[in-house]
Amino acid sequence: MTTENKKTNHETQIRALLDDWANALRCKDADGVMSHYAADLVQFDLAPPLKYVLDKKTLEKWFSSFQGSIGYEIRDLNITAGDNVAFCHSLNRLSGRRTAGDKFDVWLRATVCFRRIEGKWTITHWHESVPFYMDGSYKAAVDLKP
Amino acid sequence: MTTENKKTNHETQIRALLDDWANALRCKDADGVMSHYAADLVQFDLAPPLKYVLDKKTLEKWFSSFQGSIGYEIRDLNITAGDNVAFCHSLNRLSGRRTAGDKFDVWLRATVCFRRIEGKWTITHWHESVPFYMDGSYKAAVDLKP
Repeated sequence: MTTENKKTNHETQIRALLDDWANALRCKDADGVMSHYAADLVQFDLAPPLKYVLDKKTLEKWFSSFQGSIGYEIRDLNITAGDNVAFCHSLNRLSGRRTAGDKFDVWLRATVCFRRIEGKWTITHWHESVPFYMDGSYKAAVDLKP
Repeated sequence: MTTENKKTNHETQIRALLDDWANALRCKDADGVMSHYAADLVQFDLAPPLKYVLDKKTLEKWFSSFQGSIGYEIRDLNITAGDNVAFCHSLNRLSGRRTAGDKFDVWLRATVCFRRIEGKWTITHWHESVPFYMDGSYKAAVDLKP
């Protein structure tokens, strides 16, 4: 395979991985979501703490805070893939109705980092966030749109 | 060079790049900071908008919002480097006195992504953020410590 073909191939695999991941998330399939994570995945999440290593119990608890399925859209996906290391960034929309009754609908920034472990692209780091207003309110900017 | 030596070599170069970048930031040296950025660097910053392509004018304006030098500390730096693609994540402390008089002292999460362009590691994507409280206040969690 040429270098260019290999690159395209890696990008195609990563795109498929993210599609599969997003589908699992929408259906609240914790095993499906976690099947793409390295055991030592370091997560920088929307909610505190600053960082943590995600476990299935925490993920299931988060799933149960939504009524029904979860909405997840990936936009402006930009993938950079080497032979064994890759990263991508995108603007993602997370939406749904919380168990508490309120609607959640937020555009966030996602940076996802991968290593190819035993021939399989695997997520080793996940960073998602919204910015915050620097006007003294320090409110999270959950109302922005791409 | 063995694969392991090459990997160590890449990591050493990236660590030196980040040291140099942080020094330039502390001294408000916009050219020094930007010398490590690709022309099309995509930035996910603490402040809105969701994403932008950084220019020198914006950076200098931000520098001038601080009195004197800026404090910047990089902790828990974890680098993953392939031959031409790399990423790292860390918890960074940004501090200083704003021109408005208030003190700014925040621990943030940073994910930095690199491509090796013409033999030189270059930053192509930067994502920094704090999480926010999910208690209904939607306040940025600027008070967390690692």
